[in-house]
Amino acid sequence: MGLALGELAGRLGGELRGDPDCMISSVASLERAGQGSISFLANRTYRKHLTATRASAVILEAAFADECPTATITVANPYAAYARAASLLSEAPVARCGVHPSAVIGAGCEIAPSVWVGPHCIVDDGAVIAAGVQLAGACFIGRGSHIGSDCMFHAHVVIADGVEIGERVVLHPGVVIGSDGFGMAHEQGRWLKVPQLGGVHIGNDVEVGAGSTIDRGSLDDTVIADGVKIDNQVRVAHNVRIGAHTAIAACTGIAGSTRLGSHCRIGGGAGILGHLEITDHVVITAMTLVTKSITRAGVYSSGVPAQENSVWNRTNARLRRLDRLVRKMRKLEQQLATSATDQEPTTTLTG
Amino acid sequence: MGLALGELAGRLGGELRGDPDCMISSVASLERAGQGSISFLANRTYRKHLTATRASAVILEAAFADECPTATITVANPYAAYARAASLLSEAPVARCGVHPSAVIGAGCEIAPSVWVGPHCIVDDGAVIAAGVQLAGACFIGRGSHIGSDCMFHAHVVIADGVEIGERVVLHPGVVIGSDGFGMAHEQGRWLKVPQLGGVHIGNDVEVGAGSTIDRGSLDDTVIADGVKIDNQVRVAHNVRIGAHTAIAACTGIAGSTRLGSHCRIGGGAGILGHLEITDHVVITAMTLVTKSITRAGVYSSGVPAQENSVWNRTNARLRRLDRLVRKMRKLEQQLATSATDQEPTTTLTG
Amino acid sequence: MGLALGELAGRLGGELRGDPDCMISSVASLERAGQGSISFLANRTYRKHLTATRASAVILEAAFADECPTATITVANPYAAYARAASLLSEAPVARCGVHPSAVIGAGCEIAPSVWVGPHCIVDDGAVIAAGVQLAGACFIGRGSHIGSDCMFHAHVVIADGVEIGERVVLHPGVVIGSDGFGMAHEQGRWLKVPQLGGVHIGNDVEVGAGSTIDRGSLDDTVIADGVKIDNQVRVAHNVRIGAHTAIAACTGIAGSTRLGSHCRIGGGAGILGHLEITDHVVITAMTLVTKSITRAGVYSSGVPAQENSVWNRTNARLRRLDRLVRKMRKLEQQLATSATDQEPTTTLTG
Repeated sequence: MGLALGELAGRLGGELRGDPDCMISSVASLERAGQGSISFLANRTYRKHLTATRASAVILEAAFADECPTATITVANPYAAYARAASLLSEAPVARCGVHPSAVIGAGCEIAPSVWVGPHCIVDDGAVIAAGVQLAGACFIGRGSHIGSDCMFHAHVVIADGVEIGERVVLHPGVVIGSDGFGMAHEQGRWLKVPQLGGVHIGNDVEVGAGSTIDRGSLDDTVIADGVKIDNQVRVAHNVRIGAHTAIAACTGIAGSTRLGSHCRIGGGAGILGHLEITDHVVITAMTLVTKSITRAGVYSSGVPAQENSVWNRTNARLRRLDRLVRKMRKLEQQLATSATDQEPTTTLTG
Repeated sequence: MGLALGELAGRLGGELRGDPDCMISSVASLERAGQGSISFLANRTYRKHLTATRASAVILEAAFADECPTATITVANPYAAYARAASLLSEAPVARCGVHPSAVIGAGCEIAPSVWVGPHCIVDDGAVIAAGVQLAGACFIGRGSHIGSDCMFHAHVVIADGVEIGERVVLHPGVVIGSDGFGMAHEQGRWLKVPQLGGVHIGNDVEVGAGSTIDRGSLDDTVIADGVKIDNQVRVAHNVRIGAHTAIAACTGIAGSTRLGSHCRIGGGAGILGHLEITDHVVITAMTLVTKSITRAGVYSSGVPAQENSVWNRTNARLRRLDRLVRKMRKLEQQLATSATDQEPTTTLTG
Repeated sequence: MGLALGELAGRLGGELRGDPDCMISSVASLERAGQGSISFLANRTYRKHLTATRASAVILEAAFADECPTATITVANPYAAYARAASLLSEAPVARCGVHPSAVIGAGCEIAPSVWVGPHCIVDDGAVIAAGVQLAGACFIGRGSHIGSDCMFHAHVVIADGVEIGERVVLHPGVVIGSDGFGMAHEQGRWLKVPQLGGVHIGNDVEVGAGSTIDRGSLDDTVIADGVKIDNQVRVAHNVRIGAHTAIAACTGIAGSTRLGSHCRIGGGAGILGHLEITDHVVITAMTLVTKSITRAGVYSSGVPAQENSVWNRTNARLRRLDRLVRKMRKLEQQLATSATDQEPTTTLTG
């Protein structure tokens, strides 16, 4: 496993300064790189490590090339180029093939010959698994679900019945797709379960992190479009629709029937209420609560940054009396206006 | 599968306007319904779809019946009636029966003949599983746990040792019940594990969403009363007690020993601190932090709705200086009072 | 199972007042204790139950001994002493031994003879499992991972490839360690996966609660030091480093590359952004958002406690106009200063 630097630069579409025959066998951080490894500079914070790096080569923007003591591959987007280099230089995951004898396969399943069904997997009746899919182990594929080609499901993934999954979808351990949504009708103080009859449709090239759950629709489908990336422990409720190439960071919850646009970025720990429409190219920062639809692209926030506890407690006490403060302010204004009028005309305060 | 409209109206306790012999075979949303399907109007937002629906019939309140171009079943609570109709018209989940040969059953278990123990389930020594229970696959039932009749456990449910579960309890994939609570004593800078010796008692008709975890008690039990509904990725800590018919939305955390009343509704992403008492009929809105006991029924909130980031940053900067603002205001008041006194008597500002 | 009170007092390093031959067979809360059980008082809230307890003995601080109607063991740290007593008096978990026939063991694994590999476990090629480890059932141990001696993994734990775990580590059901981090490069509106090539290193005596996930590093390792305790549904991102004896409560998320010091305590539902440095002995309270590095030990907060919804809505409306309020205040100050100057000199308002 290894590539000559010239070959690598060509594949990355970058410009090489240095020996094209130098062999590169691994990627590493600027600090830890040694001979035979290539590193990258994508975040200015790490520029301080550039001059001392012992990497054989560094991927970076042209602007920083002169500071680099080693061979360089200059590109416009070093992080993307690094991602490609890392793919080229790291050991590809082993694709296995066949059905482990401990797996349990239901009636009428269609499983392509190149599929790997790992130990203790359960594939229920009528499920269809296309070519190249890898089920690492102890995965559950529900009745009649369709898994597109070249998906990679890590251990303990659960797909409920009747779920449609596209191609090259990567699901990390413990992901659940197609569980019942939280649909209940209130009747005389009790909750009556509303059957969750919709499905889930996951597009191509979607990735979902460990422990995330995506519920099935109640009548229509929950839909995750192509290229959506979802981090760990994210909760997507029933009938949510997420547009293409949107990324959602960990611990975020999206309530029922909300539609998220494409190319959005949702920060960690955010909460988005139900029945909202969020347009394309919206950025939500960490721990923000979205209570209304968003019709204009832009960045939206409501996360409150930490303060020292003693200061925060005082701030909070003031916050609880904010309404009083405003009313007091109005009185002051009036009093001042009156007092001014008593003496001479003044400009009116507005606000 | 199908019901005559007259029969359906009777079962829903509603009043029919239309042909009682019209056959209904499915439920659908107003927008997507076609011939042979019945739809419903429960949320005024969707009233706009009523006049154009192609459903064979619609379940709704009497007030909207005249706007509806199709047959109608009028009821007081259309969402509940829809839930019943959907149950009647959708395919009932297949009840299987028996123990799959790949399941592993410990010593001294009692498993009723009508139970389904799916593939790769593990039922540890002395567990008792009552009639009609369905374990979909790869479920783990700990030593000595009791599962009441007609429970439905989806794939990958984990019940630890010595847990008591009532009847008709539905657990979605990845639910964990009876895990150790986070009990640790601090001693000289280290944490000493406090054995978690209590159990968990789950009542009848409880439903728990995918990925939620309910810890066992430390000494006494964690208790979830009848009819409680818990959404996905909710965390219930040790010794929490939740009253009957309370509903908890996704991503909420409830800390140790807190008691939640009955008929409460907890919004998504809420956090409730430990050792609190929340009375009955309390509503907590999304992303609210509850730090004190609540003794009066009502709605409580502290979630901050999103603003445009640039605006929010300014608000936040002001918030950090709120204490200063209040002190400044006091000075202004005093100064104004003094200045007024210099001239003439004035009313005192209070607040 | 039982210990004489004198023997127990000796093992706890406490001072006994009472009959050393009294046999103690269990621990219980002050309220529920009966003959033969020992209770404890560690939280003043429960002092009211002391005089009426029917325990045979109580562990408490010397200051409260005179109020106690029963035998007492006085110690400096009653909760820690109780934890020890509970360990001594409760049934030790049964250590099993061997490999269950339904487990699937890969090539080249090293599994010590005293290890228990429970039903439906999967141990992939080259994994090493040291003496005394217990895998309860349906655990997945990835290729080449090392599990140190005397670890206890409850059901459905997933360890990905190449993870290093220390000794006496306790993992609760559904824990995932070594899943891919959320590493993606943005390129022309799409996300390019960045291979996650680092590992995870977990120290000794770490405990991780149900449903928590710890991602592998992107290049270097994710590191959890000795004695760290992590509650349920916590998310630790790639390349995070957590110092020794830090405790993290449930539903908290820590973003990529952040370093948490040792002896920190992180409250439930907190969010800590990426690339930060949090020093030792920092306490973060519940639902706090940490957006900057913290260089000084202390307590930090930004959680907003709940108010009645009607009050909170008004507060929130005021909060949205806080910037206007501040600007208005400045005008008032100026106006008052001008008005004062018109009459006589005054002190300048600062703030």
